[in-house]
Amino acid sequence: MKLATLKNGSRDGRLVVVSRDLKHAVDAAAVAPTLQAAMDNWSRSEPGLQSLYQALNAGTQAGAFAFDPEQAMAPLPRTHQFVDASAFLNHGNIMERAFNLTVKRPEGVPILIQRQSDDFVGPCDDYPVRSWEDNCDYEGEFAVIVDDVAMGSSAAECEAAIRLITIINDVSMRRFVLPEAQMGFGFINAKPATVFAPVAVTPDELGDGWKDGRVQLDLHLSRNGEPVSHPNGREMDWSFGQLLAHLAYNRNLRAGTILGSGTVSNKAVSEVGSACLAEQRALEVLAQGAPKTPWLTGGERMRFEVKDAQGRSIFGAIDHQFVAASR
Amino acid sequence: MKLATLKNGSRDGRLVVVSRDLKHAVDAAAVAPTLQAAMDNWSRSEPGLQSLYQALNAGTQAGAFAFDPEQAMAPLPRTHQFVDASAFLNHGNIMERAFNLTVKRPEGVPILIQRQSDDFVGPCDDYPVRSWEDNCDYEGEFAVIVDDVAMGSSAAECEAAIRLITIINDVSMRRFVLPEAQMGFGFINAKPATVFAPVAVTPDELGDGWKDGRVQLDLHLSRNGEPVSHPNGREMDWSFGQLLAHLAYNRNLRAGTILGSGTVSNKAVSEVGSACLAEQRALEVLAQGAPKTPWLTGGERMRFEVKDAQGRSIFGAIDHQFVAASR
Repeated sequence: MKLATLKNGSRDGRLVVVSRDLKHAVDAAAVAPTLQAAMDNWSRSEPGLQSLYQALNAGTQAGAFAFDPEQAMAPLPRTHQFVDASAFLNHGNIMERAFNLTVKRPEGVPILIQRQSDDFVGPCDDYPVRSWEDNCDYEGEFAVIVDDVAMGSSAAECEAAIRLITIINDVSMRRFVLPEAQMGFGFINAKPATVFAPVAVTPDELGDGWKDGRVQLDLHLSRNGEPVSHPNGREMDWSFGQLLAHLAYNRNLRAGTILGSGTVSNKAVSEVGSACLAEQRALEVLAQGAPKTPWLTGGERMRFEVKDAQGRSIFGAIDHQFVAASR
Repeated sequence: MKLATLKNGSRDGRLVVVSRDLKHAVDAAAVAPTLQAAMDNWSRSEPGLQSLYQALNAGTQAGAFAFDPEQAMAPLPRTHQFVDASAFLNHGNIMERAFNLTVKRPEGVPILIQRQSDDFVGPCDDYPVRSWEDNCDYEGEFAVIVDDVAMGSSAAECEAAIRLITIINDVSMRRFVLPEAQMGFGFINAKPATVFAPVAVTPDELGDGWKDGRVQLDLHLSRNGEPVSHPNGREMDWSFGQLLAHLAYNRNLRAGTILGSGTVSNKAVSEVGSACLAEQRALEVLAQGAPKTPWLTGGERMRFEVKDAQGRSIFGAIDHQFVAASR
């Protein structure tokens, strides 16, 4: 099943069910007016949403209309918890080698970063940047949206609570990353709003691409229409279930919690490329002594997309432009 | 005006207006069913809520009933962003001196910590603790709840967007604080759920107690019925407006965002005491070479309350027990 949220002037938008081929949609208000409302009572809302999805795919759903990703907000335009991981250690290792850093990480403890969830950006919306001197970077990631998870749940229990999967561009302002990390309290100015794909899908939509609590598919990035990388999600050093279990050690996670994978990064980086500029520039430092790829600047476009074995887009594309903030 | 949220089995509870003396309440559903709904359109909801408040205080409001803080959830049982500051540098200075730590803080940059906001705890609810060996601590803080704040807003603009003020017990598991801070990515297991006072109030309710973007009132803490401290909020090294402006540098803050002050701490700590055990124990280390006050354990009760010049409770009391988590 594929779900999206369309702009209607409200903070939470309106929930629609989207056809598997992303061509059509139907309003889901009869089941739940918003995705948050659906997540708040998933066991009650899921059957109705699935019925709409089946009829939509069969071409028999009354009221179906053309799905326009330009009209999409983030699937959850706001939610109550967003945590980002840095679960591809290959990424951290490259950064540490290039810049002589050491993250003091206790054995077995994953990197998780509490983040804001009040103001997500839609897949095709212009992204306002306060200052180009803040070194604007993209970060391609997979993300899951979970149901209620009770304190102390196991990794398997957490994985079973994953309801939806999507992709994000977790934009960074690199000028602030190191100073804020050195303070020890996580990211503030380093991490403005996060951009979401138009569609979130149930895990079954990924078929073999969802295995071991990881999205085993390539994330394709392009910059201004030029392909830059296509790393695969299978190399996550912790599964989403394991990451969620660490988070839920001493607290409940409530429905609608979003967990990001961190920048997707593969050992075969020289073949598949990097999902963020910081990693690409770190590799340039290691190879040539200095970075050469520039940070993003005004008017640049980034596109993120995942395709199935038949080349069909799963989540639709994040395809957006970076612009100077008007204020 | 004073607002509270009562338990009704839903995730967001039901909004009530509470009388100034905290004795009576009236359902606010005719204006807004939940505090989030009221915050989502404050300019529209405020006049109706104020009308209820005036009639309630005058004793003329139909449908008024006795206000029972035991039935209160957090004013916002969940919201879309919670950020905690550490805005009393006196606290950090004591911690750094006692344990030979240095926070690498760029000049002028406040400590802000992105936190979870999906599962707040009500003022009188039992607080479940996973393990007493995690060194359970309380932290008494002031907090503000803000309206929409546009990216790039000034401190004055941010201060003008503060709609409500309350107090919190921002519980810490001290065993994880240093290792997680050393990783650089902020707190995960160190910071389980936060506890809120039964009532949030508009700034005018504080009279002279709200000045320069700070709550200039004493926060009274007691442990198992014994007073332990009463530090004043006036010594914040940044105002709430300044902290919000730092947060809003390159992002919008959306209605319902909560900002905590960090542990209230005064230079006259030997007279007024500490608002958390970690600080009290650090002072014992500095004075006697070792801590002597124990961390919290099962069955202990903590109470937090602020009174006006006439000795009347402003926010009601956080008064809750720590218990072993059932799972």
